[in-house]
Amino acid sequence: MPSDSPFGRVTILGLGLMGGSLARAASALSLSSRITGWSPKSTERDAALTTGAVHFAAAAWQDAVADADLVVLAVPLNATCQLVSELTDWMPANAVVTDVASLKRPVEDAAREAGLLHRWVGSHPMAGAESSGFWASRDALFQGARVWMTGEAADNAHLQMVRRLWTGVGATPHDIGAREHDRLMAWVSHLPQVTANLLADALDRGGIDVSQLGPGGRDMTRLAASSPAMWRDLLAVSGKELAPALRDLGRSAIRLAQELEEGDAESGSSLMHRTRSWRGRA
Amino acid sequence: MPSDSPFGRVTILGLGLMGGSLARAASALSLSSRITGWSPKSTERDAALTTGAVHFAAAAWQDAVADADLVVLAVPLNATCQLVSELTDWMPANAVVTDVASLKRPVEDAAREAGLLHRWVGSHPMAGAESSGFWASRDALFQGARVWMTGEAADNAHLQMVRRLWTGVGATPHDIGAREHDRLMAWVSHLPQVTANLLADALDRGGIDVSQLGPGGRDMTRLAASSPAMWRDLLAVSGKELAPALRDLGRSAIRLAQELEEGDAESGSSLMHRTRSWRGRA
Repeated sequence: MPSDSPFGRVTILGLGLMGGSLARAASALSLSSRITGWSPKSTERDAALTTGAVHFAAAAWQDAVADADLVVLAVPLNATCQLVSELTDWMPANAVVTDVASLKRPVEDAAREAGLLHRWVGSHPMAGAESSGFWASRDALFQGARVWMTGEAADNAHLQMVRRLWTGVGATPHDIGAREHDRLMAWVSHLPQVTANLLADALDRGGIDVSQLGPGGRDMTRLAASSPAMWRDLLAVSGKELAPALRDLGRSAIRLAQELEEGDAESGSSLMHRTRSWRGRA
Repeated sequence: MPSDSPFGRVTILGLGLMGGSLARAASALSLSSRITGWSPKSTERDAALTTGAVHFAAAAWQDAVADADLVVLAVPLNATCQLVSELTDWMPANAVVTDVASLKRPVEDAAREAGLLHRWVGSHPMAGAESSGFWASRDALFQGARVWMTGEAADNAHLQMVRRLWTGVGATPHDIGAREHDRLMAWVSHLPQVTANLLADALDRGGIDVSQLGPGGRDMTRLAASSPAMWRDLLAVSGKELAPALRDLGRSAIRLAQELEEGDAESGSSLMHRTRSWRGRA
């Protein structure tokens, strides 16, 4: 364990897909002089130790953060906010905190409440998979991924530290405000997610089996297997921002159904020309 | 060119993604003693000759089919029906015809009209890509793909011949009636396709750029780049079967939007549990 590693002692709370992948990458790349992990599941703690993703595992998160330089929260949104509100009692006074939750305003609010705003940097890596848990984690998960970073009230040195963590594991940080981030996510992440769920549900009601789908249909329903537990927290917060976009999509679907029934081939064709051109502006 | 190849002289009309890929595969695997190709585009004919995907290219499809044992139509649906209605005047009286159009009833109707029903076997390979043209073709396109085969009035020997073509390029044939096939496609292919278009269009209206999407959003809009020309023909035929499924999806989206606005997190959560379980029954 090199003592000149860029992050000192890193503690990762949560060893699922995100936390597990970050531990694996940080460990493989020797980014930290000591990586401590905690998960509420003893099977995840054992697996993280056995695979060498962490150097130490703690059964209580309070022990895991006791002498950390950097604490990374990698648990669902509500649990993240809860930990932020309790962290200050247990971690060193100069420790930096980041998290990987998919929405940033609730975490920012919790950090403000806890008097932690100058030491908190929000992160949202746009990486993931429809599978979850430590067994789905892999050290290359963040390579090439965009990571949104918020922390308007954070000390610059802390921002730099978290930025180096993400560039260290191959990701590309982008600064954004928490409010703007959460609005954007309703469109670019939550709308595609629930569209996949709604499509899968319609196919299910239509008596269709996944094995009958072609490659396109399989891609379009892959996200339908995403973790309901993780999304429950997110939709509870982002639902009001997401709703207008979702209603707009629903109305367009009903309008197109009407046009198709009337034998109007033009509407579908012009829709396809529009979206091909949009998609081509990648 | 071995004279004992399984298919004798094969002619492929249309050298885009599907026809080009079939020519490449048949050529690479020496499935045919002579592969002749035709495309309305001289650039595709030249490319198919240069890459060795075809042995001969003809500028007129009438010349290409003149002494064919097996004719494969790989053009959009309406052009397929048009060719079926004219083929008998130009090809040998014992030639077998198949096509790769995504709907089978219109082609079956055209074959019946042309007195070709005993020599026609409909094929629909569930393989493709959002890109099109010969330059998107590749010899592995059909490997592992399911190919729906229709041809209730076809001679058994002809069915066997077309079946061997598909197994020869690594695909798995499944028999189905034309009507049942087209109903199924409205669900498993057309509904996911237009859902991708509607989602992309909603994102476009929301001012979202493709580069802002994460991996999930990119997957969910990949099909939005599909060929409008190909889909125009398909939607004109399948629109009436597709419309009820699409309306159902639209109504579910509006209902979920309402529930999200009312702060009802249960509905979204139970939707996600349902679809995760459906998707897991792969």
